[in-house]
This record gives sequence, structure tokens and C-alpha cells, in this order.
Amino acid sequence: MTGVTIGDVPTVALPAWGRSVGFVSPQTHIFDTPLITQSGAVLPPPWQIAYETYGQLNSDRSNAILLCHALSGDAHAAGRHSPSDLKSGWSEPFIGPGRAFDTEQYFVICMNIIGGCGGSTGPASLDPATGRPWGSRFPILTVGDFVAAQVRLLDVLGIEQLLAVAGGSLGGMQALEWAASWGRRVRGVIALASTARSSAMTLALNATGRLAITSDPHWCGGDYYAGPPPAAGLATARRIGHISYLSAEALEEKFDRRWQESTGPQWSHAAEFAVESYLEHQGRSFVNRFDANSYLVITRAMDYFDLSARPGGWKAAFSNTSARFFVASWNTDWLYPPAESEQIVAAAQMAGRQVHYYPFASARGHDAFLLEDEQITPPLSHWLASL
Amino acid sequence: MTGVTIGDVPTVALPAWGRSVGFVSPQTHIFDTPLITQSGAVLPPPWQIAYETYGQLNSDRSNAILLCHALSGDAHAAGRHSPSDLKSGWSEPFIGPGRAFDTEQYFVICMNIIGGCGGSTGPASLDPATGRPWGSRFPILTVGDFVAAQVRLLDVLGIEQLLAVAGGSLGGMQALEWAASWGRRVRGVIALASTARSSAMTLALNATGRLAITSDPHWCGGDYYAGPPPAAGLATARRIGHISYLSAEALEEKFDRRWQESTGPQWSHAAEFAVESYLEHQGRSFVNRFDANSYLVITRAMDYFDLSARPGGWKAAFSNTSARFFVASWNTDWLYPPAESEQIVAAAQMAGRQVHYYPFASARGHDAFLLEDEQITPPLSHWLASL
Repeated sequence: MTGVTIGDVPTVALPAWGRSVGFVSPQTHIFDTPLITQSGAVLPPPWQIAYETYGQLNSDRSNAILLCHALSGDAHAAGRHSPSDLKSGWSEPFIGPGRAFDTEQYFVICMNIIGGCGGSTGPASLDPATGRPWGSRFPILTVGDFVAAQVRLLDVLGIEQLLAVAGGSLGGMQALEWAASWGRRVRGVIALASTARSSAMTLALNATGRLAITSDPHWCGGDYYAGPPPAAGLATARRIGHISYLSAEALEEKFDRRWQESTGPQWSHAAEFAVESYLEHQGRSFVNRFDANSYLVITRAMDYFDLSARPGGWKAAFSNTSARFFVASWNTDWLYPPAESEQIVAAAQMAGRQVHYYPFASARGHDAFLLEDEQITPPLSHWLASL
Repeated sequence: MTGVTIGDVPTVALPAWGRSVGFVSPQTHIFDTPLITQSGAVLPPPWQIAYETYGQLNSDRSNAILLCHALSGDAHAAGRHSPSDLKSGWSEPFIGPGRAFDTEQYFVICMNIIGGCGGSTGPASLDPATGRPWGSRFPILTVGDFVAAQVRLLDVLGIEQLLAVAGGSLGGMQALEWAASWGRRVRGVIALASTARSSAMTLALNATGRLAITSDPHWCGGDYYAGPPPAAGLATARRIGHISYLSAEALEEKFDRRWQESTGPQWSHAAEFAVESYLEHQGRSFVNRFDANSYLVITRAMDYFDLSARPGGWKAAFSNTSARFFVASWNTDWLYPPAESEQIVAAAQMAGRQVHYYPFASARGHDAFLLEDEQITPPLSHWLASL
């Protein structure tokens, strides 16, 4: 494969093992036939997927691992694009020579989901029919649509079957969708801190984030691309999300009741506590890199995700695959709590699938799936090697 | 006392025991001397407290119970104001003849906190110096200020010592503040689903709700009283709060993934799921009865509440009272989890206080303190009788 250079890049926080993939090049594929989405709406050509790859595809094309990103992620999973990059990709500690997704053995692919804003076609893209940004006219999507688009790119890359599909959170939903809908094209399914059925709690949180966005006067029904974006609404949505990614323990450990600058109350509504300041920063930096309409589309797709509602219910969910499952949960994850991972495990077992389940302990809440590489890597490396 | 009529009023959901107090009259006391707040800011006269009472004060004035309301509450704790009232007060199942706060034995007082919007002086009141609503110029308050104002009204009512002070959530903080700062004026302290130290999680949630309000273009720096209120921002804040009051279990039990009107996705960002519709309703109805500036002031006071930060720390928190403590928590309350009630218990025990602690189980999350009257009433009645 082109576009991948292996080199040693020092990262700020060196992982416990392995090396970085070094410099990588973003890639894009443009499709010239439509994508029919689950709602019936059509994404007309040209539409595109932004992606990156790490490692080399072997001669029999049997070593490909598709890594799916979560709500705020993109195709840039590992390495750096240029020496001036301050940060590596979002899954850096897991991808590289000697890491869980060992680029000396595996060919790792990460694609930005359609509907996103990281280079794949989404609401900020131009509708070819009008020449204007799609905005709210962009099709409402499902996790099934995200995956159907991924299948199209794998066809282009000539990969008939994935060694594994992996992801955490929304990434895990995509991995499970692969098992449910494209079961013969995947040998291993890795779902971290995820669910097969969005809960009432996640529906409630997503809807409240969307309300913050659509209440922002700059949202303009989704047609804000010529003016200022609905920044305050998106920041509020991101903060709601961010709180749900952290456990009470993690917040306490990181911030406690520390004052940001003072040593006591300043008697104001401004950010006085460190945790307030942190959330302000998170909201601001998200607004600079994310499109509010993508936030609406992606959270709605998450809402609709429920493998148990399909014909045959839980029992049939994974009956069309012979894939093996690697499932992990974290005890302080209140967004996708262990019980929901255990539902995945139960469904896979009902279908006679082999499942490895790791109920990890960590103070880090939902974000543990991104951070606890030392917990995940040994069992995951071992499991991948056994596929 | 005037203003209280005992009568039997049928309520929609009849509690398991006892009767309603029937019709009650809202009362107001206007103070003609300033209230100096903890920040040093002065609330000049005339300022007022709205309150209600239930039952009769006995001749030695020893049977008064002060019930403190939570963030969204007011002075109307029980009964109805008129036959056209559709709902009783917020603490209806707990107040009345034969109920936990038995109005045949006790004289129950409930006051709207200052800074609120239920009849007591708050940001929507007129600043006597300018004749305009206070808005953002209203003093930033603390839970100590709420309680100091309550003390002023008890002085007016001639009540030297309370039999008990009670509350859940922010109401519990006020009860604990009574014990910490006015310890000789209270014999019993009842703190339900509360904390003596606002956690990083509650700081994060409160700050995000405030951001939603202050980002609303109708907020206008707090001077919105002549125009439309920041309704969308306040609704978002309320929804964030409401989610935190419910457990994942309660949401699942109440709403599951039920569609509101359809039998499947309508491919829109509108409220399609029942839980979305419910939150929309909660947001809307809150906006009709609550003032956004009060939401800012009250949540900030909650943020500042930390008895452990005072001189002497936890050990000294309750060293100036001989009150007995009744503390209750609920296992699914993730806003004020049992561990925080246990911190209250530990602090009270360090001060040599007698404590009854009830770690209840319920699926209802934080809201359990308002709803689980069947759990709370027997031990609470018994404990009150022993005071």
C-alpha cells in the first residue's frame, strides 16, 4: 500500500510498549455510484471516504484490521501527518510495531464515517445537485449506513474478508454491525465499552446535546456554512458528552474541587473551578474541529442502533457470522455500562460464537477504552494472534 | 398560626398513608433591614421570603420542622392553594396528618430560598436602588446565605430552636449548613440524597447548564426581563439536570426505547423516542415556572458548598451542634451517591453525634428522595418521635 511511511516518531506520552507508525498520509477515495441509505435517501456521487492505513497488506489479503472511530474521531488513528503535528492519531498507543494492532503483522485501516467531518462526505460537503452544502438536507444515517460505506471501500481495496473489525463506543457499534450484517466478511469482532442497543440514558443525553445545537441562533436550520457556526450550542453538546465519558471518580481524581486560579470563591458565574476551566477548553477546541451538523447526524445514528430490534431479536443478532468476539467493559463506564457489554456477550453466545470478555476495572469511565492500553494490549494481542 | 386550613383533598396519587393538609395559603414576610451575604454584597431592604406552614406551632414553640427545598422547588411543599390546582406541593406524600411530617404533631415550615423565583427576593425582583430587576447584579449567594435568611424568618416567627431541619439534595445541604453554622438552634438534622461537599461531577454538570443559559441570545447578560427569556438555554440546563436526577435504570424502566408516536424511525432530528418527548416536556414546563437567573445563582451556591473546606475540616464540621442526624442515600443516585452520604455520617460521628443512616435501594436515582415515601416514612416518623 502507498501512503504509509514507517518511522520512529517520539510522542509526548510514550506508550508502555511498541513504536509509533511514524509519518502517515491521509488518503481519500471518491465513489462514482450512489450510496442508498437505510432510510431510502440517496447519497449521490461523487461521495468520498477519507482513510488512513498502517502496515502492509499481505499477499493473500488476510491481515486487514478495520478500526472504527467513535463519535468525535476521524480517520487519523495513529502517527503524525507532518513534523509540525503536535499530536498523534486518536488510537496511537494501540497501533504500531509491537503494539496491539501490530503493524509488522497487520494492515490496519481507519476510515472517517460518512456523515462525519473528517474528510468523508458529510453535511458540510456540497450537494452535487445544488452546489451548496448539504446542511440539514444530508440523509439521516444509521450505523448500518456507516458500515455499508466501509464495505464499499474494502471492495475497492480488494479485501474480501477482514481479519478483524474493532472499535470502542460508536466504533464498537460499527464492529457489531459488521458481525450482524456482513458476518461472512469478518473473522474477529472487537467491541470495547460499547453496546448493541442504545439505552434510554444515551438517547436522553444525545437529544439534549442536539437541542443545544439546534437552539443556537447561528444554527439557522443547518445552513450556517456561510456565517458563524453554532459554536456555543456545539460546545454545550460536547460538554454534555464529555461529562458522560468521564466517571465521577475520574473527575474527582483529575480536578477535585481545585480552583483554577484563585484560592477561594471569586463570587462570579465565570469558570472558577479547574473542572469548569477544563470543560470550557474541551468545548472550545471541539468547536474548532467538528461540524455541528455531523454531530446531529452521528448521534441520531447512534440512537437508532438496536440489534435486538431486528427480526429474531437477540438470538438472531449474530447468527450470520462465524466470527469470534473480543468484548471489554469498564466498571466506571456509566454511558455504556458493563451490563450492556454482557448483553453483547450473551447474544454472541446464543449464536454459538466464541467470546472473550474482559470486564476491566478502571477509574477512567467510558474514556478507558482510549486510555487503558496497558490493560487492553496483552489480551488483545494474544487474541488477535489466535484468530 | 394563620393561613393554614386543614381539610381533606383528594390527590391524584394517594400516598400509602395519611391525609393531605388540604388548602393552604402562601405567606410572605418583608424584611426592613439588610441581609449581608457571605461575599460581602448586601441585599438591601425591602427583601422578602415567601413561605408556607402546615400544622400548628405548640405553646412552647418546640415542634417546628423546617423543610428546605431543592434546586427547582419552592415554598409550596404540600396541599393546594385553590380547588383549581391540578397538583399538590412538591413534598405532598410526606406532609399531613399521619404522614412523616405529621401535621397533627409538628409545625412544618417551608420557605422559598432567597435568590429563587418562588416569591422570595431573587434576581427577577426589583433592585430598590434602580427600580429595575436585579438580573446579574443580584448578589452571588451561598448555601450559608440561604440559611441565614431562614434564620431571620424564624426569629420573626419566634422560633428559637427547630425540632428538625430537613431536606433532600440542595435541601439537605441547607440542613447540614444549619447543623454547621446554627447548631444550637436545631435538635435534628435530616439530609436525604445530599452531600456536604459538592463533587467535581456536580460542578461539571452545573457549569454546563449555566453555559447553556448564558449562551442563549435572549439571556442578554441577565437583563432579559423586558423581553423573551432565555428559554432554550434554560430548557437545556433543566434537561441536563433532569437526566442527572434519574438513574439509567429509571430511564430504561420508564421509557425503554419506546417510540413516541411511530413504530420505527421517522428519519428526523425531532423527538421520536418517548424519552426525547418527555425531556422536551420537562424543559418546556420548567421554563414556564423558573427564572434563568435564579438557576445561575442557586447552582453557583451549590458549587461553593463544601463543609470540609472550613477551618478544622471534616472533624470540625458538626462540632458546634448537639443535633442528631438522619441521613439517607439511594444506591442508584449517581448525582449524590451513597459515598457522599457516608461522608456526612462519618463527619457527624467524628463530632460525637448520634446518626441514623439509611442506605436505601431503589431504581429511581436521585429523585428517589422525593418519590420513595414508603421507604422513608416509617424510619423517619420513628426517628422524629424519638427526638
